[in-house]
Amino acid sequence: MSTFETISQFARMLKNLDAWLQKAVAHGQSKNFDPDVLAQARLAPDQYALVQQVQSACDAAKYAAAYLSGQKAPSHPDTEKTLSELRARLDKCVQYLGTFKAGDFTGAEERRVAPPWMEGNSVRGEQYLQRLAVPNFYFHVTTAYAILRHNGVDLGKRDFIGVRSWTDFSDS
Amino acid sequence: MSTFETISQFARMLKNLDAWLQKAVAHGQSKNFDPDVLAQARLAPDQYALVQQVQSACDAAKYAAAYLSGQKAPSHPDTEKTLSELRARLDKCVQYLGTFKAGDFTGAEERRVAPPWMEGNSVRGEQYLQRLAVPNFYFHVTTAYAILRHNGVDLGKRDFIGVRSWTDFSDS
Repeated sequence: MSTFETISQFARMLKNLDAWLQKAVAHGQSKNFDPDVLAQARLAPDQYALVQQVQSACDAAKYAAAYLSGQKAPSHPDTEKTLSELRARLDKCVQYLGTFKAGDFTGAEERRVAPPWMEGNSVRGEQYLQRLAVPNFYFHVTTAYAILRHNGVDLGKRDFIGVRSWTDFSDS
Repeated sequence: MSTFETISQFARMLKNLDAWLQKAVAHGQSKNFDPDVLAQARLAPDQYALVQQVQSACDAAKYAAAYLSGQKAPSHPDTEKTLSELRARLDKCVQYLGTFKAGDFTGAEERRVAPPWMEGNSVRGEQYLQRLAVPNFYFHVTTAYAILRHNGVDLGKRDFIGVRSWTDFSDS
């Protein structure tokens, strides 16, 4: 698998997440509750609420793209409070991911990655992507989905995967 | 990223999931409830319970390894009812994944993959892995984790990632 393909897949999943938020808004409207209360919904009292799950999914994707291409990640402050603002955050991240081309990740697997929390240490790019960025990204995306499902939003596995049938693989 | 590395990462995550189940057993014992009631816990009435999340995570990993290496996947019937049986299922899958070597996945990205549900159609191996197998695998693993968190099991992000510090990347 190429690093570029993984980053492109992150962008696809963030677009799927945007579609789930749209369904959440429709759900609230149909049930006569303010959809934005879902922004603070969570599955456990000591786990992130939806708003932080979405922010964290965006950041996992953004930093993976930046670190593995040797770029500096743009600043996206965590100021969102509504589903509409979360959708704008997703769009901002997807736009950023869309600026990358396959060639930007030449040598990414061997590139040393040194996030600030590693305090001066570093790991190989492939380790960073496979063992940290990918699991962390899907953790937050799936937990956002689970929070919405738990709150009655009409979602299914096809919404998660974002593929309606095998024919969606247009470049397969 | 190599296909072999992704399959190896699936095995790591299934071992992490096994550790979460061990914590779930300890949680039940400390609270004086039968830990096996968690096998039927779910986040939404129309979503899989824990038992099916674990079975599905195993199958996502098993079929990815089999399809991408051109092998026939072994049969692992969905008979589990207890956490102990789920741990045995995880072990069986991890053992199977451990039989693969990097060379088994030579050409995997270009290999045509044709799961039965594609009804005679096929997709490229890389598409299959990135757009179906990886999201599907992490969906079930994360949902299993979320079910346990929602039921009070003492888990955190480090249990999910299975990495205590950057120094765990022994081959980094």
